[in-house]
Amino acid sequence: MINVEIISIGDELLIGQTINTNASWMGAQLAANGIKVSHVVTISDTWEAITGALQEADKRSQVVLITGGLGPTKDDITKQVLCSYFDTKLVLNESVLNHVESFFIKRNRPMLEVNKMQAMVPEACEVLFNEQGTAPGMLFEKNETIFVSMPGVPYEMKYLMEAHVIPRLRAKFPLKKLVQKTYLTQGIGESFLAEKLSDWENHLRDEGLDLAYLPSPGMVKLRISSSSGDQDRVAHYGEELKKMIPVYLYGEEEETLPEVVGKLLTVKGETIGTVESCTGGSIMASLTSVSGSSAYVLGGFITYSNDLKIKLAHVGSETLEDFGAVSEETVLEMAAGGKKELGVDWCISVSGIAGPLGGSDEKPVGTVWIAIDGPKSKISRKFLFGTDRQRTVQMTVLTALNLLRCEILGINIEKKQD
Amino acid sequence: MINVEIISIGDELLIGQTINTNASWMGAQLAANGIKVSHVVTISDTWEAITGALQEADKRSQVVLITGGLGPTKDDITKQVLCSYFDTKLVLNESVLNHVESFFIKRNRPMLEVNKMQAMVPEACEVLFNEQGTAPGMLFEKNETIFVSMPGVPYEMKYLMEAHVIPRLRAKFPLKKLVQKTYLTQGIGESFLAEKLSDWENHLRDEGLDLAYLPSPGMVKLRISSSSGDQDRVAHYGEELKKMIPVYLYGEEEETLPEVVGKLLTVKGETIGTVESCTGGSIMASLTSVSGSSAYVLGGFITYSNDLKIKLAHVGSETLEDFGAVSEETVLEMAAGGKKELGVDWCISVSGIAGPLGGSDEKPVGTVWIAIDGPKSKISRKFLFGTDRQRTVQMTVLTALNLLRCEILGINIEKKQD
Repeated sequence: MINVEIISIGDELLIGQTINTNASWMGAQLAANGIKVSHVVTISDTWEAITGALQEADKRSQVVLITGGLGPTKDDITKQVLCSYFDTKLVLNESVLNHVESFFIKRNRPMLEVNKMQAMVPEACEVLFNEQGTAPGMLFEKNETIFVSMPGVPYEMKYLMEAHVIPRLRAKFPLKKLVQKTYLTQGIGESFLAEKLSDWENHLRDEGLDLAYLPSPGMVKLRISSSSGDQDRVAHYGEELKKMIPVYLYGEEEETLPEVVGKLLTVKGETIGTVESCTGGSIMASLTSVSGSSAYVLGGFITYSNDLKIKLAHVGSETLEDFGAVSEETVLEMAAGGKKELGVDWCISVSGIAGPLGGSDEKPVGTVWIAIDGPKSKISRKFLFGTDRQRTVQMTVLTALNLLRCEILGINIEKKQD
Repeated sequence: MINVEIISIGDELLIGQTINTNASWMGAQLAANGIKVSHVVTISDTWEAITGALQEADKRSQVVLITGGLGPTKDDITKQVLCSYFDTKLVLNESVLNHVESFFIKRNRPMLEVNKMQAMVPEACEVLFNEQGTAPGMLFEKNETIFVSMPGVPYEMKYLMEAHVIPRLRAKFPLKKLVQKTYLTQGIGESFLAEKLSDWENHLRDEGLDLAYLPSPGMVKLRISSSSGDQDRVAHYGEELKKMIPVYLYGEEEETLPEVVGKLLTVKGETIGTVESCTGGSIMASLTSVSGSSAYVLGGFITYSNDLKIKLAHVGSETLEDFGAVSEETVLEMAAGGKKELGVDWCISVSGIAGPLGGSDEKPVGTVWIAIDGPKSKISRKFLFGTDRQRTVQMTVLTALNLLRCEILGINIEKKQD
């Protein structure tokens, strides 16, 4: 077991302005590769603090991952400290300079002297190319210890970890590959899922596998893992799981719901549009977050006001008067009108009370009606998503997309949601 | 200035299962009281790790705040390590025992032997009463250093910090209240901002104030702070800052751009709609994220396909043929058509190439045209946001809302973006 240490540099972390999500992400990625982080040390952007942290890490760890302190502004001194610690000097790296220049040309912005500085790297280090930004990763080896310095910007750090650091560690150290597969569910809470799966879960554990429930907003990830690297067993139980909960299980690993429905629509050569009220365009924003979605997404109406529900989606004014904007009748008319006016095969419509204001005893805050009007079928469902505005919108988006997935696949959804 | 160090104990933090929000909260609370945390050290629940962390902290810090490792479960060995480190032994504390017993009686749950163990405390420590849970806080003084051990459960830790720790520190050390104000900017990068403000920043520092650049996706926060509690000076420089960069500075503290434009529209009693292509509804989703936005948001078109640009927003088919969907001419027609069809005072339109596919030499990936058609004026601007799809959408939303803010306020935006 190797000792891996993370050094997070930045005052914003110490004064609580920024939460250290980088360290958590790195810890989780490394754990998935059978590497456990032993220390996370967060320090200020000062010469003494950085030097001290390097010395302590040097004593106890074989791998030291440093993030932060590489930006262009003057308070970033990490590179100078690294030079002195590894007894080397800054030299201009041509390939980094070219990358930085093209980075600014692409964005059609002038390059400043401070940006040129980012191409100055310690002579003793190996440069790790940073596709996502201007500050390169820097790898040092001292005695038996590997030091890697990365920018603190999350997507730059993640790129460097995935493209360079984790592959290096896997190559250098004999790591028992933990085999794991993640399955994604929507529309059922952790405890209900655990109840549904309890027998199956016991059986899985009897065979030496592990099951983890990883809830995140609006969904629960199920991770089946084998610490003995038993790929086949993991896959076998994964297939069983798919058959057990088809209504909830929508994908695997990094798949997203808009990707999943996008693939289904592409295969069928069918198009989609939306008529959104309380989600204000979030369902369409989610659908179009997928590259290439223009192949099946035509567009939509955001009918926040009742007048636009009538004018754009041709909802009857009597319908709005008799049943209200948040009603089964209204969403069904929204979906039908949108399908016709947008000229799409599938139309999702939603109307609800996102809150925190506007609720009533009959229709409390969090009440959302969703309808889907498709080539052969139409459905409508009512949900209660609680009092948090952002969460209600998020839950509505995920629920609508999962309903669409089930409709396209012809999976029958029981009226009652558990 | 005293050195305060936080030691966070728990494997769940190291493997990324739990994000260390405790340390951020403590850092923020202490900063607000003029105390800066110098180190946050996260370690595993082992004898060696805890002892090692205590020794290092002892060397460099006057105050050491320890969280975690006090639960009733057997892997929690913090108390034993503290006993050995402070050369003392566990003794039964009657008042804690009574508290624990009443705690279980109140919840009418049976009390187990393991819970009785929580009333065993190191003889050498001062017990800090924990109203919120069964594990007490423990305060040790060794030479000139204060050690406080607290449970990792956030609301228990917070209670102990607020009720016991911070009052103690304020009483023991001469602390000045840190005064700080945060200003929010959009549309200019950290380094360009730093260049623009450098003279002003030097002047500010000469007067003993501090300025921090805190970049986050699509925006840069500027924090002016005075460690000597000089409220007036901080406010004075804040006002100067507003006058210097009106195009970029959109708000203060926790304000968001949709909130800011929402307030402006409410005051004017004007309405807003959007015609969105590459953002797929994200601008409207952002506008409607504000509670009460239905007062000024009517709705919008998502015209992902060219046919819907023509049908819904009445963009001329010749315009699309001659100039393409991503052009000044097209977005201006989208905005004008949307303003008319949606019956709004202000209409934002966007069309761009979110990528990663679909770029050309003339119109590379990340090219976005934004237009705003208002009661008296209309503008259109071109931007280049790089190759990351999600980031381009996010940048487009923030940029469009900031342009709208400037238009409503009649702030003149130079064509050239820096």
